[in-house]
Amino acid sequence: MTSPPTITDIHEAAERIAPYIHNTPVLTCRSIDALCGASLFFKCENFQKVGAFKIRGATNAVFSLTEEEAACGVTTHSSGNHAAALAQAARWRGITAQVVMPENAPEIKKTAVAGYGAQIHLCPSTLQAREEGLAEIQRETGAVFIPPYNDWRIVAGQGTAALELSQETKDLDFVVAPVGGGGLLSGTALAFSALSPNTSVIGAEPANADDACRSLKAGHIIPADNPKTIADGLLTSLGDLTFSVIRQHVAEILTVSEEEIIRAMRTIWERMKIIVEPSAAVALAVVMANREKFSERRIGLILSGGNVNLANLPWKA
Amino acid sequence: MTSPPTITDIHEAAERIAPYIHNTPVLTCRSIDALCGASLFFKCENFQKVGAFKIRGATNAVFSLTEEEAACGVTTHSSGNHAAALAQAARWRGITAQVVMPENAPEIKKTAVAGYGAQIHLCPSTLQAREEGLAEIQRETGAVFIPPYNDWRIVAGQGTAALELSQETKDLDFVVAPVGGGGLLSGTALAFSALSPNTSVIGAEPANADDACRSLKAGHIIPADNPKTIADGLLTSLGDLTFSVIRQHVAEILTVSEEEIIRAMRTIWERMKIIVEPSAAVALAVVMANREKFSERRIGLILSGGNVNLANLPWKA
Repeated sequence: MTSPPTITDIHEAAERIAPYIHNTPVLTCRSIDALCGASLFFKCENFQKVGAFKIRGATNAVFSLTEEEAACGVTTHSSGNHAAALAQAARWRGITAQVVMPENAPEIKKTAVAGYGAQIHLCPSTLQAREEGLAEIQRETGAVFIPPYNDWRIVAGQGTAALELSQETKDLDFVVAPVGGGGLLSGTALAFSALSPNTSVIGAEPANADDACRSLKAGHIIPADNPKTIADGLLTSLGDLTFSVIRQHVAEILTVSEEEIIRAMRTIWERMKIIVEPSAAVALAVVMANREKFSERRIGLILSGGNVNLANLPWKA
Repeated sequence: MTSPPTITDIHEAAERIAPYIHNTPVLTCRSIDALCGASLFFKCENFQKVGAFKIRGATNAVFSLTEEEAACGVTTHSSGNHAAALAQAARWRGITAQVVMPENAPEIKKTAVAGYGAQIHLCPSTLQAREEGLAEIQRETGAVFIPPYNDWRIVAGQGTAALELSQETKDLDFVVAPVGGGGLLSGTALAFSALSPNTSVIGAEPANADDACRSLKAGHIIPADNPKTIADGLLTSLGDLTFSVIRQHVAEILTVSEEEIIRAMRTIWERMKIIVEPSAAVALAVVMANREKFSERRIGLILSGGNVNLANLPWKA
């Protein structure tokens, strides 16, 4: 794919991945509606395979490969959900996955990625070391690099969550999706701009990692400089592909504080009795922090994932 | 109602409460199935109104009252989910609810019950003080006492969860429900003995509060003596009504340790990404602890509730 996915591409991605992934439920919660003074529709990708929407893009990319491309397996560098997702997708296709991870990645993540059957290559925790490790694997094995977000196959795959959301809702005024590297947000924007052009797509971003917000205002990519946020899925900066889509199809990026993210996360846990990771809560945090803007509106929110360390929660009594 | 509810009574209860409660989803989880070597069907009462199945019995009881009976409101003594459920049911009917609570009940529970609109009467934390407080309210206001479990209207209401479970599953070999006072277990047993007599109904009980297990073996009620378990919804002992049903219709009671309960609870949180309270996890703990018995069987489990203090979880890293 050399240009942004069309709605046809997203539909094709949905068909391609349908045998493997869940069509996750869209939940509502009256008490959160009352709290926000709006009607909220939560697309629950925390219930997705591998615990996050990332499996959509990874599966679409892996099953888009020709037999010849797939023969030598796939590779990526990631310490997060993308690595686990790529490992699972490769296993479904019956090919190898090799993942470059920083040696200081949490044991829990190494174990998870290994559990899905990937070969892990540890490297020093610099971007340079990761890229060198990746290049070496590609040279030695011929494995195909599947990037975590800046790739049209990934964007099309992530857009399938929005496609499903649009099929289960109607007349949404807004859709709010978290933004890190921008794969989910750009896929969501492409889907809704085609299916429901009156729906305004909004990116939700931690103020502590607000590169997308600043990049959109500046008109060019301003990478985040060593950002720190509890929403650890949103630390990455936009790529050139995702930036181009977001620039064209996303209405605005709204940012929230760490406290707002934690409050929104706890609200979801307490009121909906479901487990979401901090990155997923950023969308609700944006709605809660902008009460007037969203008052009495119908809002879709993409709960991006549910992978959280239960032994280290961000609140006290 | 002067005799145990028939399946017709349970159907009528279901109709009576249908406008108010959720028909909660039945979820499955492949990774827990693999862990247990069985097919599990989780009836998710953690997603129920007020966060627990208790709303079923309370709503059935409150809406079973005649206009005359209801005029002076309802009352109960409870520090748990029943108090919140009765308060909510009374609010739906537009009558008052007066709840006697021990003065040392957690603030979080007092706030919750007050939040549903009940009048709270604090008393010393002895059974005698609670019963005196209750008697005084009945004398002064004429409010009708709605007991938490030892009442056929309550049992019929709790049985509606099993009714829904039976409608969404077939050929279950077992249904496992937690047992405290026995309202949920006896309602479940009455429903399944009528609808699916080949399904064996099993009670799940903490070893630290095993009065139901011991009572069943002894053939008479042996109340628990100051039991201590993390499954705080299961501290109460059987009543004469629930005991009589359980004796007749429940195959056996299986007990589990505190460690097994905590492990099962964490398994549900991590694998299913849903929040359940410790009492709800006791059913899965029983299945995990008796692998051979349940091997390759189809098992319904009633996840009784999801009200848990998120700031005080029972595990460390």
